[in-house]
Amino acid sequence: MSGGLDGPVEVVGTGLIGTSIALACRRAGLEVILTDRDPDHVRTASGLGAGRARAAGDVPQLVVVAVPPDALGAAIAEQLDAAGPETVVTDVGSVKVAPLDAVAGHPALRRYVGSHPMAGTENSGPLTASAALFDGRPWAVTPGPDADPRATRLVEALVRLCGAVAVILPPGEHDRAVARTSHVPHLMASLVAGTLAAATPEHLALSGTGVRDVTRVAGGDPRLYSQIIGGNAPAVTALLQEVRDRLDLVLEAVATDDRAGLESLLAYGQAGTRAIPGKHGAAPQPMEALRIAVPDHPGELARLFADVGASGVNIEDVRIDHDPGRPVGLVELDVIATRTEELRSALESKGWVTHR
Amino acid sequence: MSGGLDGPVEVVGTGLIGTSIALACRRAGLEVILTDRDPDHVRTASGLGAGRARAAGDVPQLVVVAVPPDALGAAIAEQLDAAGPETVVTDVGSVKVAPLDAVAGHPALRRYVGSHPMAGTENSGPLTASAALFDGRPWAVTPGPDADPRATRLVEALVRLCGAVAVILPPGEHDRAVARTSHVPHLMASLVAGTLAAATPEHLALSGTGVRDVTRVAGGDPRLYSQIIGGNAPAVTALLQEVRDRLDLVLEAVATDDRAGLESLLAYGQAGTRAIPGKHGAAPQPMEALRIAVPDHPGELARLFADVGASGVNIEDVRIDHDPGRPVGLVELDVIATRTEELRSALESKGWVTHR
Repeated sequence: MSGGLDGPVEVVGTGLIGTSIALACRRAGLEVILTDRDPDHVRTASGLGAGRARAAGDVPQLVVVAVPPDALGAAIAEQLDAAGPETVVTDVGSVKVAPLDAVAGHPALRRYVGSHPMAGTENSGPLTASAALFDGRPWAVTPGPDADPRATRLVEALVRLCGAVAVILPPGEHDRAVARTSHVPHLMASLVAGTLAAATPEHLALSGTGVRDVTRVAGGDPRLYSQIIGGNAPAVTALLQEVRDRLDLVLEAVATDDRAGLESLLAYGQAGTRAIPGKHGAAPQPMEALRIAVPDHPGELARLFADVGASGVNIEDVRIDHDPGRPVGLVELDVIATRTEELRSALESKGWVTHR
Repeated sequence: MSGGLDGPVEVVGTGLIGTSIALACRRAGLEVILTDRDPDHVRTASGLGAGRARAAGDVPQLVVVAVPPDALGAAIAEQLDAAGPETVVTDVGSVKVAPLDAVAGHPALRRYVGSHPMAGTENSGPLTASAALFDGRPWAVTPGPDADPRATRLVEALVRLCGAVAVILPPGEHDRAVARTSHVPHLMASLVAGTLAAATPEHLALSGTGVRDVTRVAGGDPRLYSQIIGGNAPAVTALLQEVRDRLDLVLEAVATDDRAGLESLLAYGQAGTRAIPGKHGAAPQPMEALRIAVPDHPGELARLFADVGASGVNIEDVRIDHDPGRPVGLVELDVIATRTEELRSALESKGWVTHR
């Protein structure tokens, strides 16, 4: 079950991700060594119970490099140089081709296997870390052509130990995948959000849930995302060019009043929303939203969820929609379509006003 | 308080929006007359208690035209022709210049004031209607230059009666506003979703919350949205061209590895996310997300929200993030940043595993 991961594990870079991995390893009883350019970060992470500072003679079984994207290549090479002859090195960067290229030709290349947990928050630093950060998340493991299969298995063992789900794929596939599922969506959200920066308050008063959803990810740190996206330039450029070409088709359809063309472009997008995998990787099931008007104070939300819980119908997603001027919120519960009626009647019997 | 709205109100088009308005009027005790091209829809809406079919000699005080976007102009003109000499006519279409242009020069133009409730769901038809649909929502009221101020006041009275918040602005302003807050975000979400339609399952396995949020609105009915967006072509085209030009800048920054340029484009987008008005139209307050690992069955969610309620900290938004392979969900609660610690310690004292 341990997959041979017995420690010590060395974490290089005790930010949010690094410290969270360290905490998960400690939770599993492994010895953890912490390194960071900033000794204060090591002290903080250590104080949180994430491990101890490096000592002379330490030979880690696995090194996890968790430094900012632009510093990855050098840090991985340094670990391959410095660590023991059997030490496996991984990293947790958001792109995977660039760091592998940076260590191409290294004599210890077989001991390096990149990885990328699909977790993290808009916060940073060790104080926001948590051993639970990776619970149930996908975590890409991306062995290059020279990687030793035993090294890959050790990184997979780390993924399991952190409670995440390993998704094994080659580095180039990974980068094309995240260009599609993360980097291009982020850029498009940022472009939409940019149009709001110039808007008058009167116009923004008409904002609804839709534009909030579309732009949410654009709130992330511009410096970090410019490194992540910039580090995946080939895959992002290729896909973004496709999107730009399709945007030109949309523009033309709108400008020439080609309703059929516009409808078909929108239908293509609608089909894409159905392609995102459902809960727990299962095939997507038809969902339906049930909307409930909820007075805007804490007790009401608790009462609603108690009644939802009592109904026995599972909730796939929740949104709260706040709008100007009235002390009432609208809670949207997504449930599997076949169970909407059951939930609806359970809630109405408790006095909730619902609509689909 | 009634603003002079005493009825009868005639609702033309008994779909989701029309029937919901009819139900809200009936809730306030007004007489409601229902008309629809499809007599079955009138019977259904009537059976829901939304009003009665038209009878000879009916003279409504206010007619609400709630037909599909492409049929609006003709339907408004028909009502101005047919209704009583003092009857005010409004509509609830998603664009406001096109229907006004369609009735330009009509001798009864002073009796027409357009409007647009920021409500509606991905469902349609009278069966999904609810008197609570508009609770707390913005509702644009868009008098043209020839509108009688008394007509505008009557439409405002309808907005209040429906529990919504009137936002008064000229038709052209409205159309430019929704191009920005709704139509262009919808098109961009659709373009992102379109890139997923062509993706392999292995790539889609790396989907996280971000791409789900960005693409959610693109799940809406392509036929309806092609009419809405197509009906606002000038405003959409102008803004979409700006976005396309900025997309070219993004493409160039990525392709030429101009990290500073990319960072500044992302920073502009980040600023835009802060421009969206906060809850109840107030200036946005700094929010923070608290994440809680929740076992994936109904009782746990209820228990969490009961504990959240007991903490006395108000929740501004909720997201549930499901990921492949493990029976655990991650619930993200957005709270005002100054109260995060209070909520965190309240939840941890109840045994929840949280992280920011």
